[in-house]
Amino acid sequence: MNNLIVMKFGGSSVANTEKIINVANRVTEKARKNHIVVVVSAPGDMTDDLIDRAKSITESPDPREMDMLLATGEIQSIALLSMAIKSKGFDAISLTGPQAGIHANNVHTKAKIRKIRPKKILEELKKNKIVIVAGFQGLNSNDDFATLGRGGSDLTAVALAAALKAKECEIYTDVKGVYTTDPRLISEAKKLDKISYDEMLELAGVGSQVMMSRSIEVAKKYNVNIHVRSTFSNEKGTIITKEVSQMEDVVVSGVAFDKNESKVSITDVPDRPGIAANIFGALSGKNINVDMIIQSAAREKYNDISFTVSKNDLKNAVSILKNISNKLNAGPVIYDENVAKVSIVGIGMRSHPGVAAKMFKIFSDEDINIQMISTSEIKISCIISSKDTDRAVKILHKKFGLG
Amino acid sequence: MNNLIVMKFGGSSVANTEKIINVANRVTEKARKNHIVVVVSAPGDMTDDLIDRAKSITESPDPREMDMLLATGEIQSIALLSMAIKSKGFDAISLTGPQAGIHANNVHTKAKIRKIRPKKILEELKKNKIVIVAGFQGLNSNDDFATLGRGGSDLTAVALAAALKAKECEIYTDVKGVYTTDPRLISEAKKLDKISYDEMLELAGVGSQVMMSRSIEVAKKYNVNIHVRSTFSNEKGTIITKEVSQMEDVVVSGVAFDKNESKVSITDVPDRPGIAANIFGALSGKNINVDMIIQSAAREKYNDISFTVSKNDLKNAVSILKNISNKLNAGPVIYDENVAKVSIVGIGMRSHPGVAAKMFKIFSDEDINIQMISTSEIKISCIISSKDTDRAVKILHKKFGLG
Repeated sequence: MNNLIVMKFGGSSVANTEKIINVANRVTEKARKNHIVVVVSAPGDMTDDLIDRAKSITESPDPREMDMLLATGEIQSIALLSMAIKSKGFDAISLTGPQAGIHANNVHTKAKIRKIRPKKILEELKKNKIVIVAGFQGLNSNDDFATLGRGGSDLTAVALAAALKAKECEIYTDVKGVYTTDPRLISEAKKLDKISYDEMLELAGVGSQVMMSRSIEVAKKYNVNIHVRSTFSNEKGTIITKEVSQMEDVVVSGVAFDKNESKVSITDVPDRPGIAANIFGALSGKNINVDMIIQSAAREKYNDISFTVSKNDLKNAVSILKNISNKLNAGPVIYDENVAKVSIVGIGMRSHPGVAAKMFKIFSDEDINIQMISTSEIKISCIISSKDTDRAVKILHKKFGLG
Repeated sequence: MNNLIVMKFGGSSVANTEKIINVANRVTEKARKNHIVVVVSAPGDMTDDLIDRAKSITESPDPREMDMLLATGEIQSIALLSMAIKSKGFDAISLTGPQAGIHANNVHTKAKIRKIRPKKILEELKKNKIVIVAGFQGLNSNDDFATLGRGGSDLTAVALAAALKAKECEIYTDVKGVYTTDPRLISEAKKLDKISYDEMLELAGVGSQVMMSRSIEVAKKYNVNIHVRSTFSNEKGTIITKEVSQMEDVVVSGVAFDKNESKVSITDVPDRPGIAANIFGALSGKNINVDMIIQSAAREKYNDISFTVSKNDLKNAVSILKNISNKLNAGPVIYDENVAKVSIVGIGMRSHPGVAAKMFKIFSDEDINIQMISTSEIKISCIISSKDTDRAVKILHKKFGLG
């Protein structure tokens, strides 16, 4: 649809009446010249509160029922925002994820979007209504609510922008855009005007809190322009878009870190085909995302296999590995929660050799021990001890000239 | 379905974790020998809190959006209760009103049930699951949530009991059953073992808080046995059922009162055909329920028309009447909020003449002024000044031998 903008507001932007009215003002300003689809998250801490509530009833709540429970948060937001917009004399309608035609798969609490059938949204837009869609939720093939997991509302927004061919997808948040590193940690951090999907993907993958990588992937695939900006100011934020040539002049565009990682190793694994598939198959079967993987060079037919998972998944991962270790007659499973991942990202790396070497030299000069390394074309990540994180980020930001 | 019981729990029964676990215990006890459908309301004061929240945003929230908002309360209850039941090793599934096949009409916030298509419920019962249905909500023909208004969860329960041919519909509440009058007011009030639909209808119509008349009407129509009982004890409550002959031996079975009434009069209305239709058509067009109606005997071609509405509807009713009064060149509209309705109910009245006369005599002996009177076959109601309510109820309860 022509002249359509998708605007997404997170939970902190709709946490109370005053904030909801502020969002209504932002939306209606823009609605004078554009068709608008708004995507909202649950108000404030409601999702966490509901999870706590469920866990007060039983330690492991049924996932289908958890989704039934969590879906109510976003539904409250859309209803309240729609009331606020209508009370300002604009026509609006709220739609649950299912009503908006968002179809998800059947993995409760971590569902993926299967397809979007935006018939109802288009009908309402054609009636000149502002359409307000509940983020984070879809309908699965059992006709049940399925929630999309962390970052789910961003995903809803980007996927809708793609399906509706919106001219822009605005992600309103409590920061002003994407920074060269975390501005709460490093005061010299600078806001970027533009960043490529690939760089943003690498940043997201290494713990930049602004957006989850799954949303960026969808944006890249469907070429959706994302504008990350502040709910509380009219300042321009950061555009996430496809790569443009002058971007390559900047070698490194950001330093990111993630303190939510933990390192797990299974030791003395017999060196024969199929073992890795066995281990990582079991983990993915439980929906545990594995990040960096390192397999030590074989010594006398035995390997150590190490990898990182998020701290939330650590307990499950360890118990799965212990099981596998028993079956394979492998050695003990060891793990370490006191690690962090520090990464540098930049599409310029592709044409500027020696960036990795420079990073390792900086760490070595600072006496920071590197435990694991992984690299991609435009990113280098190191696992280090979590106590060194802040120092590592600061020195990298400085030495790569981002200040 | 054979051996099926519908159990309905109100908001105070699921207000917190402890209470939800208590309800799960009651349900699973009964589930050993019966198929069970549970209907629940929103937890505690959530519905009122959500209404307040909406009104903090705009004075007159859009009704469709209000229903979208309010539907979340019951959905939270069904999800949490289902988790609690599953954690006890029983299989259960929660269903929203729409999922349960409850179809409503399009009057938002006061919808009526159009029909029930219990296919999904029956499928799940056949898998030996305890089915937990969100009360108070259905799906309207726009595929939107529609809420059923006050007492809506009772209505859901009774209508499901009828559609599923349940052997009983248990209404769990914070009182032990139906009493001869309000036990909070009169310590001599007695719990009734049985009461007929008609008596219960009259009691409900005159403000007995136990159940709303719309649910009783459905129960009567489909011959559903209702068992009103306490959530917090195993004691038998009161069975609401079809009339049995020995019931007639008791002349008056209950005294009820309603302090939520207000009296409105439109004065000096021209006495010509169509005027009443005009007035009450306008009120029902705004979904305002009118209770007692009195038209004074015509004096010189002008009438006074008085009626009672609930205090909530008073403001709207008065503004509609003022409009009509202007159009008809009638006199001023006057109203009084300081009134109450006191009623005696009993199927025995039909065969025992003089009950009304006795009631009026009792009031006159007590110097209680009667402002309006209405009677049915098994009920006599009087509007009196609200300050006299407690005294009137006590003396009627005593003089009709209910203590």
